[in-house]
Amino acid sequence: MDKKAAYEKVEAALSEKRFAHTKGCISEAVKLSQKWGADVDSAENAALLHDITKHFDRVQQLNLCSAYGIIIDDVAKTEWKILHALTGSEVAKREYGASENECRAIRYHTTGHPDMKLLDKIIYLADFIEPTRDFDGVEELRRLAYEDVDDAMIAALSMSIREVLDSGRLLHHDTVDTRNKLCLMKRKI
Amino acid sequence: MDKKAAYEKVEAALSEKRFAHTKGCISEAVKLSQKWGADVDSAENAALLHDITKHFDRVQQLNLCSAYGIIIDDVAKTEWKILHALTGSEVAKREYGASENECRAIRYHTTGHPDMKLLDKIIYLADFIEPTRDFDGVEELRRLAYEDVDDAMIAALSMSIREVLDSGRLLHHDTVDTRNKLCLMKRKI
Repeated sequence: MDKKAAYEKVEAALSEKRFAHTKGCISEAVKLSQKWGADVDSAENAALLHDITKHFDRVQQLNLCSAYGIIIDDVAKTEWKILHALTGSEVAKREYGASENECRAIRYHTTGHPDMKLLDKIIYLADFIEPTRDFDGVEELRRLAYEDVDDAMIAALSMSIREVLDSGRLLHHDTVDTRNKLCLMKRKI
Repeated sequence: MDKKAAYEKVEAALSEKRFAHTKGCISEAVKLSQKWGADVDSAENAALLHDITKHFDRVQQLNLCSAYGIIIDDVAKTEWKILHALTGSEVAKREYGASENECRAIRYHTTGHPDMKLLDKIIYLADFIEPTRDFDGVEELRRLAYEDVDDAMIAALSMSIREVLDSGRLLHHDTVDTRNKLCLMKRKI
């Protein structure tokens, strides 16, 4: 699908607010890619598509998982909203022709994953710090994201874990393992 | 070993400050056991012995693990201080004749464990809220511990996770899984 058609299709699918967030995520992901040397086109496309199934309800998410053969782990059974990263990745591939790298970045953008590559980290961070975001600590996180990607990832993952604790939700192992792995890597430098 | 001899041996092994914490933990564990119907003698003994190897350094902990055949997981390799719960449990069994239930409570008192039973939760909470403890939120946790053991466990585990995040340490799966399991159980009530 060409870029113009993809933007029009995403804009038609999302609410105005979510499309504004998506556009913010694109601009941030492009800037981060330029800063850190990731593929700018892939960053733009992954950011455009990262939330394409987020408006689906629980039944729609489960139906998509079933249709696409997505295995739902124990935490996702309860915290079904995290499934939009998995279903979004499949829709990005099937309906938009997204590449494997772009799909992986979409798949990892909510929980993180211990095997995240640079593009994945950029999409994760862009989703966190894009210009429409406003929360305690966002400015420090914006600064860190342009100073050290892994330090920014540790800070963002820790914020995400705190938010899960505050709201009484279940913690996903991928988030914990991603933070553990990055902390361990940092200690060894 | 009789009770008097066990108290004398623990007092001789620990610093004055740690023995004061241990005595606080005993009194709290006894009160919690009376409140919730756990075995008071087991609670007293597990609390007495819960920190008996905490003063050992990294090499001593690793040597004890090797001698006792304790398998060290990936997180404990780095966060070696959590090993005192595992080595303490073995020393409690071998040197003090602690029961299986008491040893299990000692083993789970630092990271928690998804299979925690009432005695284990009581030792975990007593360690957190005993009278010498002083931190933001301790009064609320004391109140919760006598109102609902599982709510208190969720709050204490969440505090423990926050403290690990704040200090840049690695998160242990057992802590995350224990909290997830209790949160899930609470949602189903």
